[in-house]
Amino acid sequence: MRETKAQIGNFFEDFAVGQVLAHATPRTVAAGDVALYNGLYGPRFAVQSSDAFAQAIGYPRAPVDDLLVFHVVFGKTVSDMSLNAIANLGYAEGRFVRPVYPGDTLSAVSEVIGLRENSNRASGVVYVRTTGRNQHGQAVLEYTRWVMVRKRDTQSPAPAAALPALADRVDPAALGMAVPDLELGRYDLALAGAPHRWGDYTAGEKIDHIDGITLEEAEHQIATRLYQNTAKVHFNLHEQADGHFKRRLVYGGVVISLARALSFNGLANAFHVAGINAGRHVAPCFAGDTVYAWSEVLEKAELPGRRDIGALRVRLVAVKNASCANFPLRAAAGEYAPGVILDLDLWLVLPR
Amino acid sequence: MRETKAQIGNFFEDFAVGQVLAHATPRTVAAGDVALYNGLYGPRFAVQSSDAFAQAIGYPRAPVDDLLVFHVVFGKTVSDMSLNAIANLGYAEGRFVRPVYPGDTLSAVSEVIGLRENSNRASGVVYVRTTGRNQHGQAVLEYTRWVMVRKRDTQSPAPAAALPALADRVDPAALGMAVPDLELGRYDLALAGAPHRWGDYTAGEKIDHIDGITLEEAEHQIATRLYQNTAKVHFNLHEQADGHFKRRLVYGGVVISLARALSFNGLANAFHVAGINAGRHVAPCFAGDTVYAWSEVLEKAELPGRRDIGALRVRLVAVKNASCANFPLRAAAGEYAPGVILDLDLWLVLPR
Amino acid sequence: MRETKAQIGNFFEDFAVGQVLAHATPRTVAAGDVALYNGLYGPRFAVQSSDAFAQAIGYPRAPVDDLLVFHVVFGKTVSDMSLNAIANLGYAEGRFVRPVYPGDTLSAVSEVIGLRENSNRASGVVYVRTTGRNQHGQAVLEYTRWVMVRKRDTQSPAPAAALPALADRVDPAALGMAVPDLELGRYDLALAGAPHRWGDYTAGEKIDHIDGITLEEAEHQIATRLYQNTAKVHFNLHEQADGHFKRRLVYGGVVISLARALSFNGLANAFHVAGINAGRHVAPCFAGDTVYAWSEVLEKAELPGRRDIGALRVRLVAVKNASCANFPLRAAAGEYAPGVILDLDLWLVLPR
Repeated sequence: MRETKAQIGNFFEDFAVGQVLAHATPRTVAAGDVALYNGLYGPRFAVQSSDAFAQAIGYPRAPVDDLLVFHVVFGKTVSDMSLNAIANLGYAEGRFVRPVYPGDTLSAVSEVIGLRENSNRASGVVYVRTTGRNQHGQAVLEYTRWVMVRKRDTQSPAPAAALPALADRVDPAALGMAVPDLELGRYDLALAGAPHRWGDYTAGEKIDHIDGITLEEAEHQIATRLYQNTAKVHFNLHEQADGHFKRRLVYGGVVISLARALSFNGLANAFHVAGINAGRHVAPCFAGDTVYAWSEVLEKAELPGRRDIGALRVRLVAVKNASCANFPLRAAAGEYAPGVILDLDLWLVLPR
Repeated sequence: MRETKAQIGNFFEDFAVGQVLAHATPRTVAAGDVALYNGLYGPRFAVQSSDAFAQAIGYPRAPVDDLLVFHVVFGKTVSDMSLNAIANLGYAEGRFVRPVYPGDTLSAVSEVIGLRENSNRASGVVYVRTTGRNQHGQAVLEYTRWVMVRKRDTQSPAPAAALPALADRVDPAALGMAVPDLELGRYDLALAGAPHRWGDYTAGEKIDHIDGITLEEAEHQIATRLYQNTAKVHFNLHEQADGHFKRRLVYGGVVISLARALSFNGLANAFHVAGINAGRHVAPCFAGDTVYAWSEVLEKAELPGRRDIGALRVRLVAVKNASCANFPLRAAAGEYAPGVILDLDLWLVLPR
Repeated sequence: MRETKAQIGNFFEDFAVGQVLAHATPRTVAAGDVALYNGLYGPRFAVQSSDAFAQAIGYPRAPVDDLLVFHVVFGKTVSDMSLNAIANLGYAEGRFVRPVYPGDTLSAVSEVIGLRENSNRASGVVYVRTTGRNQHGQAVLEYTRWVMVRKRDTQSPAPAAALPALADRVDPAALGMAVPDLELGRYDLALAGAPHRWGDYTAGEKIDHIDGITLEEAEHQIATRLYQNTAKVHFNLHEQADGHFKRRLVYGGVVISLARALSFNGLANAFHVAGINAGRHVAPCFAGDTVYAWSEVLEKAELPGRRDIGALRVRLVAVKNASCANFPLRAAAGEYAPGVILDLDLWLVLPR
C-alpha cells in the first residue's frame, strides 16, 4: 500500500515568507447560493436583494452580498492554511474591489507575508495576503489574515521572524471601486427601508441594532459547508466532545454575517462593505447562542472623484446572549466585556 | 449623539385609515428561493416543480409556488405592520392574480382600511389591504389581513372605530387570472401524481392527507428569514425564554406551507392557490411539533369563460401531534379542538 | 362521501413482474438545488463546483452532482415503491449515462423485474429497474434496486418467485458516457485540489478520508424533501416515537452523499460517479451521529476508446461515531463491524 493521499493540512514549519498557495476548489456562485445566504442570515439591503433596484441605480443586476464573496474566498484557504490552526487571530487591509454577480466563478490565491514562532515553540503565527479572483482573473477581494498554526514538531527550527507592516485602516482613496457610478435620483429610500444617507451620520454615533437571532447547529453547518470551509471544529461533534469546548464551534464568518444582517436596522442604506480595516473574533459562539449587534460610526470619508457615494468607518460589535442597548465593549480592566464575540472595523458605502 | 436610526416599528396609534405604507425591501425571487422552498416543505405539484410540465400545458416556464409569493409579500409588511403585534388575527379577500416566475422582483404596498381600539385601551386591531407587485408594477397578489397591535401609550386617544366590510368568500368570477389558457390534452395525470380532476371532487368530501412532518428550529428560521420576515418571536430564544411560551414561535406561514405541501396527497392536481377566503392561526406551533393536515371540499365553482379549469373551495386544516384520520376541527362547546393550529379557506384551481 | 383520494402506497401483492410505473412528479433541477446540495454535504469536486473549470476541460458548464441526480430520481420512486417498505435492501447495475445540467427536468420510470415473498408471508422483496430521463426523454441514470415491502394481507396469494440475474459489477466498457472528451491539458490539478491521477492509484489501496460530519435533523429533512422523497420514517417524529427506533431515520442517500463528499480528501480527482456496482445500507443513521468514511480501490479499468479518463472501482464505506483510521468493515464472525452504516461499490472516473 502507498502512502495515503488524504491531506492533513500544513503545519507552521511548512510555511515560508513569499510562498504562494493556489487554493482549491474554484466555485461558481449562483442564484442558489444567494438564496441560501438570505435564508441563513436574513439580510435586507435593497441593492443585493433586488435586481430591479440594483438596475435602477446602475448595476447590471443585483450583486452578490460582499460577505458571501468573503466567505467563499476564505473557505478556499482553510485546507491549506488552517486545518491545524489554533485560532484565527485577525484581519486587516481588506478591500472589495469589484462586484461579483451570480454565475461568476471565484478562486483564491494566498501569499505568505509574515511568520513568527510562538515562545512555547509549539505553534506560530502565519500572515497571509489572500486575493479572490473571478473567472476572468480579475481581483474581486483582497485581505490580510493571520492565524496561529500548530507545529508538526516542537523541535523543528523556526524561520526568522518576519512581521508585515499593516495599515491601521484602508485609505478611503482605495475604496468604492466595486460600486458603479450611481444614478442617485433613482435610489428609492422608501424601498431601501430608511431615509438616512451618508450625510445623516455623525462620527461617534452609536446604533443598537436591537434584534437578536438564535443560532442552530444545522444553520451554521449548512452555511460553512456552502463556503466549502472544511475546518473540523465546525462539523464534528464526535471529536469535539473530547475537546476543550465539548461541542462544535461556529465559524466566525457566520457571526460576521449575522451581525451585518442585523445592522440593517439603523444602517439600511449602507449597502456595500467596501473595506475591512480590522477584525477580531473575541470569543467563540455556539449553537443556542443568540447574537445581537451594535455599531459605532468611527469616521466619515468622502471618496475621491465620487459625488454619489460616501464611506462610513464603522465598528460593528456582535454580542451573545445580551442586549446591546448599552453598547457593551470593554470591561473595567480594558479587556472585552463578557458576551462580546466580534469586534469588526469596516468601511461601509452609502448614497450621498 | 443623535437619536437612534434603528426602527422599533409602528404602534396602534401610528396608524390611520387611508394611510399607505410602501414597504421595504424589494426582493428578486430566483431559482434558489424555489429550491429552498422545496427543501423546507416538500411540495410536489407538477406545474411548479417542472419547467417541462408547465411548458407543455401553456406556461412559459414553471411558476413560483403561490405561497412562496405570499410569504415574500407578507414578509415585507412585518417591519411596518407587526413588529409590535400581539397576534395575527385573520386573512380575507386574497387573490393571486398574476403568475410569478424566477427572476421577478416583488415589492409590497399596504393601505390601512380599518382600525378598532380594544376595550382594554392597551392595543387595537389594524386592518390592511396589501398588494404585492412585480418589477413592472403589475399586481400579483392582493389580500386583507388584520392584526392586533400594541399601543405605545395606553392613554393615547383612540381613532374612531372603522371596520371594513369583508366578503365571506372571493367571487369565483375573480379567480383564475394567474393561469394561462391550458392545453388540457397535454396535462399528464400520471406525471402529476393522481387521476382526479375538478369534476371528480364533491362538496362535502373530506380528505385526510395522512402524512405528518416534524418541524425543526433551523427549518422555520431559515424559511422565515428567506421571506425577510423580521418578527422577533421567531428568532430570539434569549428574549423568548422570558416570554409567555418560553421558546420561539413558528411563523404561521410555515404551517400554511406545510399543510399545503401535505395536501398534495389527495389534491395532487389542485396545482394553483387562486384565492384566500379566510384564514386563522388557531394555536401556536413550535419546533418539535409534528404537523398533519386534512381538507374538506366546501364548494365547487366553474370559472366564467374557462373550460380548462375549475375551482374548489377547500377548508385546509392543520393539526399538530395528532393524526387527521378523524378530521379534527371542533370540540364539544364549538371551540377549536385541541391540536388544531390552522383553519384556512382557500380557492384551489384544478384541470377539468 | 366518496372513497378518499389520498394514497397509502402499494403493497407487495400490488406488484407484478413486467409492470411499469411512471412516477410523479417531474422535477427541474436548477441552480438552487445545486447550492442546497453543496450546503448540505460540502462536496468540493472542481468539475461540479465551477462552471469555469468544467468549461475549460470540455463541458458546456458544470454538471449537476451525480448523486443529486440519483436522489431526485430515487425520490420519485418512493410514493409508488416504498411507502410500505420495511427496508431498502440493495442496489446494483447503476450507471450514470448522460450529464445533467441546471435547468434539466428529471422524471423516472420503473419496471418490476423480480418478486419473492418472504417465508413469513407478511412481506416480500420487490426488484425494480429504474430509469431517470431528462426533458428530451434521454436516459441519464439507470439502476436496479430491491426493497422489502409489506403485504396488505398476509393471506394474499404470492406471485411465483422470480429473481433477476444481476451482474456483480458494471462492465467498464459501459462507463464514461456522461463524460465528454476531456481536454486533459486544461485539467488544473492544483485547482482540483490534489495531484493524483488515475494512474497514481493501486488496487488494494485504502484511504481514510479523515474528517467526520455530525448530522442534524433539519439537515437530513431538508435534503430528503428536496428530492421529494416522502418516506414517513424520515419526517414524522410523532409517529416514529412509537416505532422501533423511537426517532426519525436518516434517508440512506444522505449518508451516501456525505461519504462521497468526505471522500474528496484522498480522491479529489475522482470527479464522476460512473457506476453503482452494489450498495447496502448496513445500519441506520440518526441525527446526532457523526459520519466518517474510508475507501478501498478494488480494481482499475481502462475505458474502451478513452485515453483521457480511467475508472477506479472503489468500495466506499461509511462509519458512524468512530474514526476510520483502521478501516473498519468486518467483525470477527464476518458480520459488519459495529458502526459501519454503508457499504457501497462504485465506479469512479478520474483523469489519466
